[in-house]
Amino acid sequence: MINKPGELLASINSPADLRKLKPEQMLQVSQELRQFIIDVVSIHGGHFGASLGVVELTTALHYVFNTPYDQLVWDVGHQAYGHKILTGRRDNFHTNRKHGGISGFPKRKESEFDTFGVGHSSTSISAALGMAVASKYKGEDDRQHIAVIGDGAMTGGMAFEAMNHAGVANANLLVVLNDNCMSIDPNVGALKEYLTDITTSRTYNKMRDEIWNILGKISKFGPDPRQIVSKIESGIKATLLKQSNLFEGLNFRYFGPIDGHDINHLISVMEDLKHIPGPKILHCLTTKGKGFALAEKDQTKWHAPGLFDKITGEIYKKHHDTPQPPKYQDVFGHTMVELAEQNPKVMGVTPAMPSGCSLNIMMAAMPERAFDVGIAEQHAVTFSAGLATQGLVPFCNIYSTFMQRGYDQVVHDVCLQNLNVVFCLDRAGFAGADGPTHHGAYDIAYMRCIPNMVVAAPMNEQELRNMMYTASQEDMGPFTIRYPRGEGVMPKWRTPLELQQVGKGRTIQEGEEVAILTFGHIGNYAVDVCQKLALDGITPGHYDMRYAKPLDAELLHHIFSKYEKVVTVEDGCLQGGFGSAVLEFMVDNGYTSQVKRLGIPDAIFEHGSQLELQHEAGFAPIDIENTVRELVGVAVKV
Amino acid sequence: MINKPGELLASINSPADLRKLKPEQMLQVSQELRQFIIDVVSIHGGHFGASLGVVELTTALHYVFNTPYDQLVWDVGHQAYGHKILTGRRDNFHTNRKHGGISGFPKRKESEFDTFGVGHSSTSISAALGMAVASKYKGEDDRQHIAVIGDGAMTGGMAFEAMNHAGVANANLLVVLNDNCMSIDPNVGALKEYLTDITTSRTYNKMRDEIWNILGKISKFGPDPRQIVSKIESGIKATLLKQSNLFEGLNFRYFGPIDGHDINHLISVMEDLKHIPGPKILHCLTTKGKGFALAEKDQTKWHAPGLFDKITGEIYKKHHDTPQPPKYQDVFGHTMVELAEQNPKVMGVTPAMPSGCSLNIMMAAMPERAFDVGIAEQHAVTFSAGLATQGLVPFCNIYSTFMQRGYDQVVHDVCLQNLNVVFCLDRAGFAGADGPTHHGAYDIAYMRCIPNMVVAAPMNEQELRNMMYTASQEDMGPFTIRYPRGEGVMPKWRTPLELQQVGKGRTIQEGEEVAILTFGHIGNYAVDVCQKLALDGITPGHYDMRYAKPLDAELLHHIFSKYEKVVTVEDGCLQGGFGSAVLEFMVDNGYTSQVKRLGIPDAIFEHGSQLELQHEAGFAPIDIENTVRELVGVAVKV
Repeated sequence: MINKPGELLASINSPADLRKLKPEQMLQVSQELRQFIIDVVSIHGGHFGASLGVVELTTALHYVFNTPYDQLVWDVGHQAYGHKILTGRRDNFHTNRKHGGISGFPKRKESEFDTFGVGHSSTSISAALGMAVASKYKGEDDRQHIAVIGDGAMTGGMAFEAMNHAGVANANLLVVLNDNCMSIDPNVGALKEYLTDITTSRTYNKMRDEIWNILGKISKFGPDPRQIVSKIESGIKATLLKQSNLFEGLNFRYFGPIDGHDINHLISVMEDLKHIPGPKILHCLTTKGKGFALAEKDQTKWHAPGLFDKITGEIYKKHHDTPQPPKYQDVFGHTMVELAEQNPKVMGVTPAMPSGCSLNIMMAAMPERAFDVGIAEQHAVTFSAGLATQGLVPFCNIYSTFMQRGYDQVVHDVCLQNLNVVFCLDRAGFAGADGPTHHGAYDIAYMRCIPNMVVAAPMNEQELRNMMYTASQEDMGPFTIRYPRGEGVMPKWRTPLELQQVGKGRTIQEGEEVAILTFGHIGNYAVDVCQKLALDGITPGHYDMRYAKPLDAELLHHIFSKYEKVVTVEDGCLQGGFGSAVLEFMVDNGYTSQVKRLGIPDAIFEHGSQLELQHEAGFAPIDIENTVRELVGVAVKV
Repeated sequence: MINKPGELLASINSPADLRKLKPEQMLQVSQELRQFIIDVVSIHGGHFGASLGVVELTTALHYVFNTPYDQLVWDVGHQAYGHKILTGRRDNFHTNRKHGGISGFPKRKESEFDTFGVGHSSTSISAALGMAVASKYKGEDDRQHIAVIGDGAMTGGMAFEAMNHAGVANANLLVVLNDNCMSIDPNVGALKEYLTDITTSRTYNKMRDEIWNILGKISKFGPDPRQIVSKIESGIKATLLKQSNLFEGLNFRYFGPIDGHDINHLISVMEDLKHIPGPKILHCLTTKGKGFALAEKDQTKWHAPGLFDKITGEIYKKHHDTPQPPKYQDVFGHTMVELAEQNPKVMGVTPAMPSGCSLNIMMAAMPERAFDVGIAEQHAVTFSAGLATQGLVPFCNIYSTFMQRGYDQVVHDVCLQNLNVVFCLDRAGFAGADGPTHHGAYDIAYMRCIPNMVVAAPMNEQELRNMMYTASQEDMGPFTIRYPRGEGVMPKWRTPLELQQVGKGRTIQEGEEVAILTFGHIGNYAVDVCQKLALDGITPGHYDMRYAKPLDAELLHHIFSKYEKVVTVEDGCLQGGFGSAVLEFMVDNGYTSQVKRLGIPDAIFEHGSQLELQHEAGFAPIDIENTVRELVGVAVKV
């Protein structure tokens, strides 16, 4: 179903078309753009609130700046739907986030208007500064470089690193601060409070009151020195606001705050800014979900609501007659509370993903023991390490793909010191519709090479709970538990907590000729495959290894002694991953079985459903089945 | 040779002893402490300038605060020599950085006064905040938590992330900003300028001038309104300095700047700060190398000068009669200039290590093309990616161990977009005396699992030059070149630049029965070993694989077809490293050779010389020799 754009929007196939229109038409363009986003996302899904919040900003940017010659970098990028629609992707927009369709994020391969691929937060200033420095070096002095970054992303340390460099780089850079007080969840931290402070001019008001009081006390100096105040006010306001500004402190010229939904004002301010050289920041106040009342009201829920009725606002949910397995996320969240109730040492930490990872359950139940530290993975890890030095057991929940950003801290602050920090890596493996920037493909490889680190993956809800319980025990050291996005397999998941022996796998079934070794949730595929193969008289062994590190040596000796053919399956990269760990064991111990490793090959995988991507990568159920059939020499199914 | 401490210092075996002395004795203690550091470091080596700069700070902190109950975290930690000497390690201090001796950095295993292990920068605020939050949770309200961080480390993004959290965490945290304008090299960036600005009160002066002018213009309002100025001044100065402060903007109470060498003032200010709750920052101005004139004058040279004459200041150098091979670092630096002269696209980037990695050679020769971006690895990588989007070829030089801090940016900003950024990983493998925080052990594993990434290592200077030349060609995509700290093997190293075929190894010698596959500089050990073995009639093949990714499939087919026994040698972790890549190839291709992998086992290795550590890890020359002897069944040498 193709949605019909409004009259003006229908005529805009590129920003060049947009720029042919008159300024007074921009209000209508932005209204049509907002409506088009609502129409399409309600039917086809995707991120919602963020793009609605920057409709005017997006329109103004493409109207004022000469894109793509002028270079526009969107931070994170899930707010770039309007940008995509205005830059030639209006008629493909309904394919957004679908397998084979356009990406939900800006992507260089997709359009010359997408100057930099994004997905993770806080990269835009660095990237735009690189472009600006390149332009300066090439003598392209007329070229503009704009980074659009949210106040949440601004708390990520690398944004600060980039500001620190930009402040002295003398390059033509405009940072547009899209201040909506939200990431996916409400923003936290001192920077947020600071932005509120300058927005409401609290500092300025304090200063004015101060002067007012002083002048009141010294009224003997003239007829009514209070009259002086108005003069002083106008004189020092500019100086004060500029000099007292955190961004001015970093050598940026600060402009704002201005209403990010006032398109005419945006256009006139941006026109002015084009002519001001050097680093500058434009502080825009916006509302996430702007123009869709329910989304404005509950911004976390409407960040990416799924399909909904655009008139009533009803969010469609699947209905099931029987109890369904819960999401791993929710099992994590509820189990955290359970563990913490039993064990006063257990604490929770998340960098800005409380609703995504479900730590919000613990934050509500015991706010003094669960912390959202902002978009700050590095700090989240070392803050957790600090807690651990005091004998506490922090569970630090970070999406697998974002864990990459705290990697040094895992090595240097946690593993070198052998501290008891538990890393729960959510969304490990293929992330699905979010695509390549969000796939958690590399964690097994990059975690298992670090000394002292345990790397575990649960095959179901019970396993997750038991691994969490095990990791919460004294002196366990660094402990990684990875699990995928989405549902497990156990509708009755609230099983009693049981200790595991770290590094012990479990036998799902003994078999003949071929052994299937699985790591994590993907093992459920192997269970189904074994049932199907049994119908044809093929009976491979199946082992849920549970731990990629330490490996279960006893079980592996059994397997390599018994089976000449081994298949490893993981939802992770083949280079250096779980299967490679098995190879290391095999060769180190002098075994020579034939091993076929299934997992994510050495390539970039785009977006799609998890199953679509697993099939593309060659480890969907059918691939596992065919691999076993090949190994036993029985005709392969197509 | 044991150095004799001064009279007071000799009596201090712990801070408890220090605190028995009178405040007026602290000046003498700090003088004796400074002299002791000079005495020992001049003879035994180590970091120098940083510790001299914080002698008074260190003394004051341990005098005022109740360490170790009050928790003191040193950022980076190479300035903690005074701390070590005052906390029970005076008589072992001469073993500093030597194999089996005390560490050059704070280390939890070494002392209860070392609350957090450090080495990498910018971690202290996160760690101390974790401790402070733990104390709050436990009800230990009297406990103090202090992070001492340099102005250089403050530019690292995670310090900002931690400040953002601390500003709202309501925990008892004191950040001591040790502002000496230096890291190893002079600091760069807007923050440095800002600190100078508040130090010299430029903002305040501007404001005063502004008011002065206004009041001058409106003199009709009273007899002499300029008299008002002095009143206004005193009234608003406090408000202004506080409100206009970047740190106050983040909700920290700001104190300072104060003279970090005035011990009496330090003590009195710190006494006051003990009684102020919440997050606060004390800005101390210090001089790196304080008290040793030459070190004050050339702070980079005296960061870690080696052995020297403490009277004349002569730095001892080894004398050689014949030309010596250069350091890989210097080959990198000079080759950068050569490449850039030939190719206008070549640019250089380093995060605060210009002298360490020798990019300073290019920065001096072509300052518009080589950038020190501050302690900011994340930004360095994405800034490079931004340059690459514009068709430039940035060489981003980061020590292997610090590359961990830009890992997400390598994956997300460079490799996903297949951009042509060259990562030169200096100090790969064992770093030597700097110890576990600085060993570059994991890069092969964590780099080769990323799609599009090339992973190369040169066996000598010529190879390094040729790899750099190759990586600088168009459309090479992400390219990693890792090399160790220290000298290569070619005194005549300025060889003509030649293109390599990416992924092609080279045969050093064909042989029989056993093949030795080496990756990088470590291959020179194998050359020596082969010469020795030849004397006993043992003739293994030796292959310099050059690329861990992509592997040379043709050469490997040859090797696995020819040899039944294979030894892999790398200066990197055995889990998922080069040897594992070889195993993956072997098993994927159905070979069943016996393979023995030599490299860094899955354990933490302490400090020592590179050769000492390689021996401990089992891949020193003698280990390679014995491995071959074992494989061919000839008696092993002990």
